[in-house]
Amino acid sequence: MSFSLPPHGALHHVSIGCFTTQAGAEIPDTTIAFQRWGEFRGDPAGDNNILLVEHALTGDSNAAEWWCEVIGPGKALDTDTWCVVCTNALGSCYGSTGPASEHPDGGRWGSRFPAISIRDQVAAEKLLLDALGIGRVRAILGGSMGGARTLEWTLMHPETVDYACVLAVSARASAWQIGIQTAQLSAITRDPDWHGGDYYDKPQGPDAGLAAARRIAHLTYRGELEIDERFGTAFQAGENPLGPYRDDAQRFAVQSYLDYQGVKLVERFDAGSYVTLTETLNRHDVGRGRGGLNKALASSKVPTMIVGVDTDILYPYHQQEHLSRNLGNLLAMSKLSSPVGHDAFLVEARQMDLILRRFIALTEQTPSPHDFASSSGAYDI
Amino acid sequence: MSFSLPPHGALHHVSIGCFTTQAGAEIPDTTIAFQRWGEFRGDPAGDNNILLVEHALTGDSNAAEWWCEVIGPGKALDTDTWCVVCTNALGSCYGSTGPASEHPDGGRWGSRFPAISIRDQVAAEKLLLDALGIGRVRAILGGSMGGARTLEWTLMHPETVDYACVLAVSARASAWQIGIQTAQLSAITRDPDWHGGDYYDKPQGPDAGLAAARRIAHLTYRGELEIDERFGTAFQAGENPLGPYRDDAQRFAVQSYLDYQGVKLVERFDAGSYVTLTETLNRHDVGRGRGGLNKALASSKVPTMIVGVDTDILYPYHQQEHLSRNLGNLLAMSKLSSPVGHDAFLVEARQMDLILRRFIALTEQTPSPHDFASSSGAYDI
Repeated sequence: MSFSLPPHGALHHVSIGCFTTQAGAEIPDTTIAFQRWGEFRGDPAGDNNILLVEHALTGDSNAAEWWCEVIGPGKALDTDTWCVVCTNALGSCYGSTGPASEHPDGGRWGSRFPAISIRDQVAAEKLLLDALGIGRVRAILGGSMGGARTLEWTLMHPETVDYACVLAVSARASAWQIGIQTAQLSAITRDPDWHGGDYYDKPQGPDAGLAAARRIAHLTYRGELEIDERFGTAFQAGENPLGPYRDDAQRFAVQSYLDYQGVKLVERFDAGSYVTLTETLNRHDVGRGRGGLNKALASSKVPTMIVGVDTDILYPYHQQEHLSRNLGNLLAMSKLSSPVGHDAFLVEARQMDLILRRFIALTEQTPSPHDFASSSGAYDI
Repeated sequence: MSFSLPPHGALHHVSIGCFTTQAGAEIPDTTIAFQRWGEFRGDPAGDNNILLVEHALTGDSNAAEWWCEVIGPGKALDTDTWCVVCTNALGSCYGSTGPASEHPDGGRWGSRFPAISIRDQVAAEKLLLDALGIGRVRAILGGSMGGARTLEWTLMHPETVDYACVLAVSARASAWQIGIQTAQLSAITRDPDWHGGDYYDKPQGPDAGLAAARRIAHLTYRGELEIDERFGTAFQAGENPLGPYRDDAQRFAVQSYLDYQGVKLVERFDAGSYVTLTETLNRHDVGRGRGGLNKALASSKVPTMIVGVDTDILYPYHQQEHLSRNLGNLLAMSKLSSPVGHDAFLVEARQMDLILRRFIALTEQTPSPHDFASSSGAYDI
């Protein structure tokens, strides 16, 4: 079989045909976009050097950019050694099919786009690997929503994954997460410009709602210590938030900072995708349909490293402790110490370098079930 | 001087005249409402048995109800011994002047109501005590916004306060608090029925916005462990949140719970007051105009007990540690251990009983500056 991947770094689109979600909706002519860095080596169907990286909620397939500290020649995920592949998740707006995509019957998908789950995203990504002729990957790594996908990969398709590294996520959505994520959904769906999700042909989209959602979300991505150390109760330059009457144009510095975070996201992200992907996080639960959380985790056969952040508000560290205690094949556990909170796995470059080098070293020292059970049916689950 | 208080438990309204805020706005004919329980004993201007209790953001003067576990005959704040007084804060909607009150020029105050601060609330409460002929109180106690007022009392009018008990609050708003509180303000002010705060003569007020604000707020009042233990990823009875398309009527149990919290608040609270009082929390900073936070705290002369909750998301425990380390006259520190988070000071009855009994005992064992410096000018600050 001839095997080839698109040029280093280029965005490539692959059709995976008609996709049926777990809940029974259909997405005809589904596309998954991806990029890769580093030369492929090995057997596409067996031992090879592919590291599949999974992006977070508003991320994209350009992992070499958003994870530039750890992906590249000589870096922890060394592209001189490994072939790093990153797909854009189903439902997103960076090349894969989502609410903002053209619908086969005309117009954009909008409200016609189904509610999908983390498992649907993994199923779509598996179809992409099938379409590319890739039967196994050396490791899957991801944080946050990317960590949820990585975890589901190890349970849905353990035969495809030699090792996994799951960062800053939990075995299922917590009620608090569902609550704060629903507050974000509400900020968007209450926007008069949302139009039930069918705003694509309107002069104005739900920009204000998306910005409001992002301001809430950002407060869960960053540690309260870090935000307070940066801004405290300082005023935004040239503004006075202590006037005799309330005035939204007179702000504390942190208000201005959050406004900026909102505006930045509106410039680069689609509100429909934000709703769709946030919904996947609300639905995240590896125990569902598998006899419960701990039974599902105990059944895991893929050697998996778990990483958490000590100040994570969104996915508190006890959730990673829970994963570590219950996973059937724990490779290692690591904790990032940082005031930054959840985003530490993206910004604490020095610590992440050490953690991912340790992960790679462990994969080289630790046998994968594939090494001694490749044809024994060990993965019949 | 003849001294009398209104009947036990009855809501009483007192005019404190024209009130000028620190930022220079005027509120003519300001009213402060209050209630009291237990017989007054002692000297209104000196040693007496008044315990002044300060309510939280959406609380009211009915402390014997919302803090029923600790206020009453034989309870920690024993109304057989103490005369418990609780006022409704300036800007609220339970009897004191706020945005929903009648304006002297007609209509409701609405957007004409100024932006006020915690210090304004304390100044108004001081004018109430002056109007009643009360020159000193035995102790002031309060949590959350009530804790912020208590703390300001000890710095603005130490000559009026023998002892203080400050629960679940910080020396100033943190940037994270300002951020999450601003998200709540935004949920209300983005509501098309807000009308810039002048919705009182409209058929519909910003109920949806206020409910959305409360849903966000509630996630900061409750610990994520407690919410998750109660709801996890359970579905609301009769609803299925995993359908093929997103449907806000098909909810997880936690979504229904938060919806209920929102609706309950809308039934009992005014959106304008919610905005006004939230603004006071954004402006909270005991260091402002006093040479900075730690200098202000070090100057404190009132023996003060600090209480925090180990799982408080809104006012994390390190903020109470900061208060304890820096206050000039720390009486004691106590920690509530609870999965409940911030609201623990309202709901952990057994622990609060012990803590407040300890506080009362300490006030009886520890000299107050008043005991040896009543006329020395020790309080000229």
